Amino acid sequence: MSESAITALHSSPNAQFRPVPIGAWRLDDAFWAPRIAQMREVTLPDQWQRLVEFGHLDNFRRAAGADLPFRGVFFNDSDLYKWLEAANWALAHGAEPWLEARIDEAIALIAAAQRKDGYINTYFSREREKERWTNLDLHELYCAGHLIQAAVAHHRVTGSRTLLDIATKFANHLCDRFGPNQQRKQVWADGHQEIELALVELYRETGEARFLDQAQLFVDVRGRGALGRPYDRWESTYHQDHLPLKEMTTLEGHAVRAMYYLAGGADLALETGDPDLITALERLWEDTRLRKLYVSGGLGARHEGEAFGDAYELPNATAYAESCAAIGSVMFHHRMLHLTGDGRYADFLEYTLYNAVLPGIGLDGTTYFYENPLSDRGGHRRQPWYRVACCPPNIARTIAAMPGYAASVGEGGIFLHLYLNGTVEVPLDNGRTVTLRIATRYPWDGGIDISVDSPGTFALNLRIPTWAFGARLEVGDFAADVPIEPGGYATVRRQWRAGDTVHLDFPMVVRRIVSHPAVVENANRVALRRGPLLYAIEGTDHPDTEVRDLILPDESEIAPSWRMDVLGGMTVLTADAMSPTPDPGWDRWLYRTLPDAQARKVVLKHRILTAIPYFAWANRAPGAMQVWLRRASHDG
Amino acid sequence: MSESAITALHSSPNAQFRPVPIGAWRLDDAFWAPRIAQMREVTLPDQWQRLVEFGHLDNFRRAAGADLPFRGVFFNDSDLYKWLEAANWALAHGAEPWLEARIDEAIALIAAAQRKDGYINTYFSREREKERWTNLDLHELYCAGHLIQAAVAHHRVTGSRTLLDIATKFANHLCDRFGPNQQRKQVWADGHQEIELALVELYRETGEARFLDQAQLFVDVRGRGALGRPYDRWESTYHQDHLPLKEMTTLEGHAVRAMYYLAGGADLALETGDPDLITALERLWEDTRLRKLYVSGGLGARHEGEAFGDAYELPNATAYAESCAAIGSVMFHHRMLHLTGDGRYADFLEYTLYNAVLPGIGLDGTTYFYENPLSDRGGHRRQPWYRVACCPPNIARTIAAMPGYAASVGEGGIFLHLYLNGTVEVPLDNGRTVTLRIATRYPWDGGIDISVDSPGTFALNLRIPTWAFGARLEVGDFAADVPIEPGGYATVRRQWRAGDTVHLDFPMVVRRIVSHPAVVENANRVALRRGPLLYAIEGTDHPDTEVRDLILPDESEIAPSWRMDVLGGMTVLTADAMSPTPDPGWDRWLYRTLPDAQARKVVLKHRILTAIPYFAWANRAPGAMQVWLRRASHDG
Repeated sequence: MSESAITALHSSPNAQFRPVPIGAWRLDDAFWAPRIAQMREVTLPDQWQRLVEFGHLDNFRRAAGADLPFRGVFFNDSDLYKWLEAANWALAHGAEPWLEARIDEAIALIAAAQRKDGYINTYFSREREKERWTNLDLHELYCAGHLIQAAVAHHRVTGSRTLLDIATKFANHLCDRFGPNQQRKQVWADGHQEIELALVELYRETGEARFLDQAQLFVDVRGRGALGRPYDRWESTYHQDHLPLKEMTTLEGHAVRAMYYLAGGADLALETGDPDLITALERLWEDTRLRKLYVSGGLGARHEGEAFGDAYELPNATAYAESCAAIGSVMFHHRMLHLTGDGRYADFLEYTLYNAVLPGIGLDGTTYFYENPLSDRGGHRRQPWYRVACCPPNIARTIAAMPGYAASVGEGGIFLHLYLNGTVEVPLDNGRTVTLRIATRYPWDGGIDISVDSPGTFALNLRIPTWAFGARLEVGDFAADVPIEPGGYATVRRQWRAGDTVHLDFPMVVRRIVSHPAVVENANRVALRRGPLLYAIEGTDHPDTEVRDLILPDESEIAPSWRMDVLGGMTVLTADAMSPTPDPGWDRWLYRTLPDAQARKVVLKHRILTAIPYFAWANRAPGAMQVWLRRASHDG
Repeated sequence: MSESAITALHSSPNAQFRPVPIGAWRLDDAFWAPRIAQMREVTLPDQWQRLVEFGHLDNFRRAAGADLPFRGVFFNDSDLYKWLEAANWALAHGAEPWLEARIDEAIALIAAAQRKDGYINTYFSREREKERWTNLDLHELYCAGHLIQAAVAHHRVTGSRTLLDIATKFANHLCDRFGPNQQRKQVWADGHQEIELALVELYRETGEARFLDQAQLFVDVRGRGALGRPYDRWESTYHQDHLPLKEMTTLEGHAVRAMYYLAGGADLALETGDPDLITALERLWEDTRLRKLYVSGGLGARHEGEAFGDAYELPNATAYAESCAAIGSVMFHHRMLHLTGDGRYADFLEYTLYNAVLPGIGLDGTTYFYENPLSDRGGHRRQPWYRVACCPPNIARTIAAMPGYAASVGEGGIFLHLYLNGTVEVPLDNGRTVTLRIATRYPWDGGIDISVDSPGTFALNLRIPTWAFGARLEVGDFAADVPIEPGGYATVRRQWRAGDTVHLDFPMVVRRIVSHPAVVENANRVALRRGPLLYAIEGTDHPDTEVRDLILPDESEIAPSWRMDVLGGMTVLTADAMSPTPDPGWDRWLYRTLPDAQARKVVLKHRILTAIPYFAWANRAPGAMQVWLRRASHDG
């Protein structure tokens, strides 16, 4: 088994447990296995083609001396690095010669583009070489961070040091330039966070303490004019440079940057155990989940600055909720879970993965959302690529790495965070490996059968999702006599014999969610959730009906049913609903006076409401979509 | 009487009537007279001080050779020009030596900064002189337009040609550069519309047809890559360069630019009568009023790009509704009113003036809003100046010019659009002047007494606002036997004797407004309007109550009362209302499941709701504000 944990927390003194590597899993399910196969066979080849087409690879050839123009945006190198990281995690699922050849080809290009001093950035090459590090909003450190993450993935999955050596040389260069012993005594931080978590990971991979120190320095300098140029309050908030991390009480500014920042902060906390930092991270997430989190797990309300809004500013149609911000959120929760052992972080991780990352990619595996609104009139469709193409390879690396989020192991035993159908070989602390066979139709079904195929004494910790009230746990044929608390882990500690079985059952109740009264747009509306999945309704299932106005009465029973004919197989929700016949008065007015506007009695027609998982929306004929459903025909 | 009509429509062949000059009015009321006095005595001196302080005047000295740095933004010249225009309209109300001296001082600076070829722009002077006209998104033509508008105002009010000659020389220069006979055969348009309407006005003022032709050219070129550089769909829409004006079906992009564009288009239509252009303008406004107009008259839903949103995208707390967009809307409606004679345009003009322009300036006369949200949690406060200071002098010129919007005269007689207390001397077509004395407490009261102080035979056309159902009209002691249709004009045509009186009465009913169901944020909410004024509630009048949640039941009677102690004298609305006691469950959750979230019965406490005119909000202690009020305690 290759070492392929997505974060190396073996040595982190403050980690409660360490992730079970991707390569330890053999998935065999109807949900994730086909997605990962598609990622390897369709998505990554398609993205490689885009990288070729849009000049990402040529930019490296140019930096190495070829007579070619620079193409694209200044941070384009990061797209290739994210693709490389994705390709390496994809290899952890099994060999794939075409991918291996492309990885080697990319690494050779990167090696050739590296300058003697270790620096790599194709935008700042040749005629722009003297502009290096003059404007840290041009993402040189951001790109360096993604190079490092790709190198770490390559090393963990393949054992090869080729890319790791390149990245280490660059990291040493930037530590010389920005480190505590530099001549200038001036530390700047990058406009876009990413280098912080990458350097901690590089420290874990290489054992070089200077990388950890440098990550600490980049976090510490922020909030004090870190970009080294004057800017106004809006701009400093945009960059999270308005306050030091430990003094921030709410997330503001660019949402992706903020989430990468928090993930880097959590990485630091895992290494240093700094209690003030941990308190700050917990406080910031608490504020976010209470005031700035979409019901999908999406983050970032505003298009302007791709930013968090004010408290309770969570518009649906104009939600930004960038796919990359959700990915940053997954990284953050993964780290916080390992830092605290608190199962609620696994809950957020899972929920974000299913409902905020997955919508970012089409069922075709080759189209992507940058923004993820929660209602739409039919115009928002996934695109095959973007001029700013951060999201596509970012989604690829997250899906390829997904099993790495599923389980952890440590002194406390084995922890199952996500329920995947397949086999996992867990390396225990005592050097032995335990094989678990897991059979489940999760997330469609709440039944999970776990077979322990190796004997031994260890604790099996099973995450009970926060929504799983009434969860049941059986060991062998008997109900387990252990606490089963939603939001925590049910711990079965015993001497296992090979073939022992555990059965978990989560009631998959359809739940109606309402939101805080301050989110004015969601008044008189419910969202539907079943298990870890958020649901939405689409126009294509509701002809002649404005989905915005479709009414789901509180007393209407909602029936889940498995529908093989819908989008390749989905659990669909149906319910009796009503549709008000439109009042033609509204064709002529935007505003009307009372009581005139209510003179015409609303006539309701019976309809069948059909909801599909939100992650699968916009995969059929274009049409309106709505997450928040009307509860009553009258407004008040 | 000096000639001081804000638009010269005397010669416009397609104008239904022409504006009665500002100088024809002697205001003597409690609403506008003090505001105009404050404009002359407080606002304009304060703004002049800012212009001095922030280097606007020094930039002209620098362009003329002084050894000073350029300060501020590239379009800063326009701030001085708008101030100059405001100062000249302010002089139309009566002599003011300090203002006259400042006007002369500014004109001397502008004259000294003008290049031999006529060009003036302090940003593109000296070392940047060779960059002239290389990037038309840097507002050289926009600044030229505001110079022309200032020059036209100066000429109309004072009769002096000093500034008009400077502006004409510049206009000739830019016609040479961008006109049909230029060498390059390449016409670009400015990133920010303004030059179009300014050139039509200069044509009216000078009779020079080339200025009209040039305005036509600038309108015709737009929609065809007018900025002369490649940009994407977002950017071309931002600049209204995605489609020719006549092909646009909905307003998109930057709202201020769009409204200036429409105003310029209407000016062209007034001169050319082009039926396709008129149809396009009417269609665009119809679409806007049906789908993109805030209940305040504000325009522009999005911060990103200061732009129009999609249809029905009208968020309240994050509304952009820039003061300048409202000013553009007033200019547009003024022109459309004169083009069509349709009183509904006067209605929009009045409503926008009271509810979308006036909120832009504080009751202190020295602080301004750039954005005008319709709900707020207390953080949005007027500022004494802005780095991009377009709004303050723009509001000043609009208020100073206000009486110019009030009346028109033409073959059809005298038209009263706005009801102001005071005296107006109307120059009839037959060369005689008719003096009207108008006594009213409008907008607080609906009674208007008009005394005709000059004998003669002419028609008096009195606008009946669209909301004035049940309006009564008496001539002498008798009810007038003429049609009185809200949205139109009541026409009294007779042989008047000196001392004849007319009495108009508009029932000032408080109206509850509801909005189109597609504006999801306003569901279960009403706005209050009385006469031409929109109302709002503020936290300062509702201690211990969340104004967002204050409930005004449909059956609750709303009582208007004049309150001398409120904000210097306002008609305030009060009503029995209710406030739900907060559910502490919402302190711990952003989302909750049903029925848990409703287990706790809502307890309602009686409150007195107090609403003040929206234009006067944020003039007391900071606190929340809400235009759209909840109708019922239950959501559904």
